[in-house]
Amino acid sequence: MRVLITGAGGFIGQALAQAVADRRPDLSQLVLTDQHITEGPQGAALQPGDLTDPGFVDALLAPGFDLVFHLASLPGARAEGAPDLGHRINLLAPIALARGVAQRRPGARFVFASSIAVYGALRETVAPATPCEPALSYGAHKRMTEVLLADLTRRGDLNAVSLRLPGVVARPATETGHGSAFMSLLFHKIAAGQGYDCPVPDTARCWWLSRPACVDAFLHASTLDGDAVIQPPVLHLTTGAVAQAVAEVTGQTSRVIWGDDARLTGLFGALPDLDASPALNAGFRADADARALVRNALA
Amino acid sequence: MRVLITGAGGFIGQALAQAVADRRPDLSQLVLTDQHITEGPQGAALQPGDLTDPGFVDALLAPGFDLVFHLASLPGARAEGAPDLGHRINLLAPIALARGVAQRRPGARFVFASSIAVYGALRETVAPATPCEPALSYGAHKRMTEVLLADLTRRGDLNAVSLRLPGVVARPATETGHGSAFMSLLFHKIAAGQGYDCPVPDTARCWWLSRPACVDAFLHASTLDGDAVIQPPVLHLTTGAVAQAVAEVTGQTSRVIWGDDARLTGLFGALPDLDASPALNAGFRADADARALVRNALA
Repeated sequence: MRVLITGAGGFIGQALAQAVADRRPDLSQLVLTDQHITEGPQGAALQPGDLTDPGFVDALLAPGFDLVFHLASLPGARAEGAPDLGHRINLLAPIALARGVAQRRPGARFVFASSIAVYGALRETVAPATPCEPALSYGAHKRMTEVLLADLTRRGDLNAVSLRLPGVVARPATETGHGSAFMSLLFHKIAAGQGYDCPVPDTARCWWLSRPACVDAFLHASTLDGDAVIQPPVLHLTTGAVAQAVAEVTGQTSRVIWGDDARLTGLFGALPDLDASPALNAGFRADADARALVRNALA
Repeated sequence: MRVLITGAGGFIGQALAQAVADRRPDLSQLVLTDQHITEGPQGAALQPGDLTDPGFVDALLAPGFDLVFHLASLPGARAEGAPDLGHRINLLAPIALARGVAQRRPGARFVFASSIAVYGALRETVAPATPCEPALSYGAHKRMTEVLLADLTRRGDLNAVSLRLPGVVARPATETGHGSAFMSLLFHKIAAGQGYDCPVPDTARCWWLSRPACVDAFLHASTLDGDAVIQPPVLHLTTGAVAQAVAEVTGQTSRVIWGDDARLTGLFGALPDLDASPALNAGFRADADARALVRNALA
């Protein structure tokens, strides 16, 4: 099986590449691409390049892939401030990539890193019928790509699934452009015994998913058939509860000063309950509890 | 006010162009474009060309428009059989057009001819919360464009509204590519005293909107502000009831032989009720009744 991972130099992509190399015994070729990529699992082919460049995409896809994980994107906060770049990276590139994959290998499995940003403001329990009214261009582009992938799947051109990811923790403190960066910094700052001015209050209710649980979701999705959109199960916890769990697991004292940024709280810290029963029935799993989340996030 | 109409050589576009010329006293310039366009209201500028050609679009949009009606599209049945062409005309062209209009005249009013094909299979009463699961690439592309336009509007780049149109009647019998062609042929064949092999049964329940009522909806939408998606009110009638009304209004005898095409019936003849209260409250109107529909459709 020939596998391609885009965004393979990123936080999730690096871990996914290793997991694919370790856990897909049917793997015959693993190609990793990103704007800059200098390392990967043994035997993987590294193809640095720009997915908004049609010539690069043509050459990249030439071998034909049986399975593609499309993770590359411009993060939401950066895309909101650079709309033309966001348009090219988050909309035009996935469209061209998906169609290019389908052209060379009809029916290929295509696992797309979508986002809970597709929903926009949420008030009631999230379920499969929850409407999508994105409040950021990032979410609008993800939603448009989901619709395209569902149509390509309906036609038999691809066999695609979109995973709607929450903020995945704990991203390196050096990564920028994610409005949800505070969710990761909570882990790093408390674990390091440092103080942290968190922009949202300790009552902010977020959806939490560790990188290992996220990687498991990608791998599991790659083995299934169909199911256009999957909302993976998540932990639904307040920032205060997570801070306490980090302190407990790491033996540190939480020295967080809580803020009141209404915009960030509205985007990432006002999330309602999630009815993840379709994904649970399909075998997807969240981190087991707050302490498991902390251990996985800091692993 | 500078106004652009795309698809202005088509069935709806021709009537809309005349209505804009007659009923927008603030009109200073009217530009009409289509692949082939040789006539329009007095004073209108005719710009034949291809909206999938970036050079043509650049030149077309150069003056900057305050109001754009985007009607050009490849009909659903044709697009389903020519997916690459459909992709260019029904997805890439509206994306480029909307962004080009916004670039030259931020906040311009953009009225988009969307379609009830965005819904896919419908079972329950259609209301604003009805999910979109398009069953044709045409509907997927329309839905993707709606999402993009809502995002451009949220950003203040455009002031866009999408009108979800049903099959509009009565299209000329010579027009091809519409799966809903039978809805128009019912009018023409009975009015001409001819027999007609209708592909769907007389119990098929369709949504009906005459061209004059459709043009009124476009004009009304152009005078409003915001409201990302409008589902205009329609008449919900069986094909049998419409055939009878056509016969009564035209003084002819209906000599229709009813068919049982399950696919066409599923796509166009199995429509549930519509709760159009948001559009009614916003001043949109359907044809008054079946006889008014017939008179308007044959006008």
